[in-house]
Amino acid sequence: MNFKNLVADVPDFPKEGVLFRDITPLMQDGEAFHEATKRIVDFAKEVGAQIIAGPESRGFIFGCPVAYELGIGFVPVRKPGKLPRKTISYKYDLEYGSNELHMHADAIQKGQKVLIIDDLLATGGTVEATIHLVEEMGGEVVGCAFLIELTDLKGRDLLKDYNVFTLIQY
Amino acid sequence: MNFKNLVADVPDFPKEGVLFRDITPLMQDGEAFHEATKRIVDFAKEVGAQIIAGPESRGFIFGCPVAYELGIGFVPVRKPGKLPRKTISYKYDLEYGSNELHMHADAIQKGQKVLIIDDLLATGGTVEATIHLVEEMGGEVVGCAFLIELTDLKGRDLLKDYNVFTLIQY
Repeated sequence: MNFKNLVADVPDFPKEGVLFRDITPLMQDGEAFHEATKRIVDFAKEVGAQIIAGPESRGFIFGCPVAYELGIGFVPVRKPGKLPRKTISYKYDLEYGSNELHMHADAIQKGQKVLIIDDLLATGGTVEATIHLVEEMGGEVVGCAFLIELTDLKGRDLLKDYNVFTLIQY
Repeated sequence: MNFKNLVADVPDFPKEGVLFRDITPLMQDGEAFHEATKRIVDFAKEVGAQIIAGPESRGFIFGCPVAYELGIGFVPVRKPGKLPRKTISYKYDLEYGSNELHMHADAIQKGQKVLIIDDLLATGGTVEATIHLVEEMGGEVVGCAFLIELTDLKGRDLLKDYNVFTLIQY
């Protein structure tokens, strides 16, 4: 299946000069959505994932079906003020400003094998923050899976100690 | 399975006087997450859903696995500025201020049988806005499914013309 045909290229979104890779046509196509998710399920089995962590909100789109299919848990990684119980947090720099991600402090058990799933690997800031949080709780990051990788942005360089899966590369 | 045992009651979140029903413990429990999702899958089959629509971001949590399991598409319903292509939108009032939801203008085909999935039915404002958008595109709303229903807030009254499924009631 040629997944790239189902990714819409939208110029100048969210700002001028940025080419946005829009995965909603792929999600709308039932067969493609199932098949793309299934490929991440296969990777999750390979690495022995015991729980999935996914950053909001697009990390939920593939992360939740993978957790469902394997009968394992899903842990959301969220922006400040969204998770109601005690959290741990990690702040990281963006091109302009900074970002902060939270996880519930009891989300991951010591030694648990965690697969991080998101839609897009760009500079890698979000996944690096998520790895930091998972490891702070004593979890073992057994892999990072993404639908799309923007290879120019070299996010993979940050992940050289980890098992990385991407389905579509640009 | 007693799903209620896996919902954490968090007082005074997100503001004083509100009792927040936190579903993250249920999501973290692989067996419970699978079983809860499966119950919505069964409802989706019953009503003949051809596509799932889910409001961000908690609507993705159950909506995406249901779409995956049935091999049908998933359409995100999002806040302003998140969807990159041409959208239609609907604005509705909240207790304080207002909210606006968008869907891509090509998300739903005329006559398509749409199941709306979200985590929580409270006053029903979000689901009502989603129904409006789906019907504007010519879709047929064959059902609305929620993990939790807060019966005191009477959201179901807004949905009396629709087939409603809720797994847990308070």
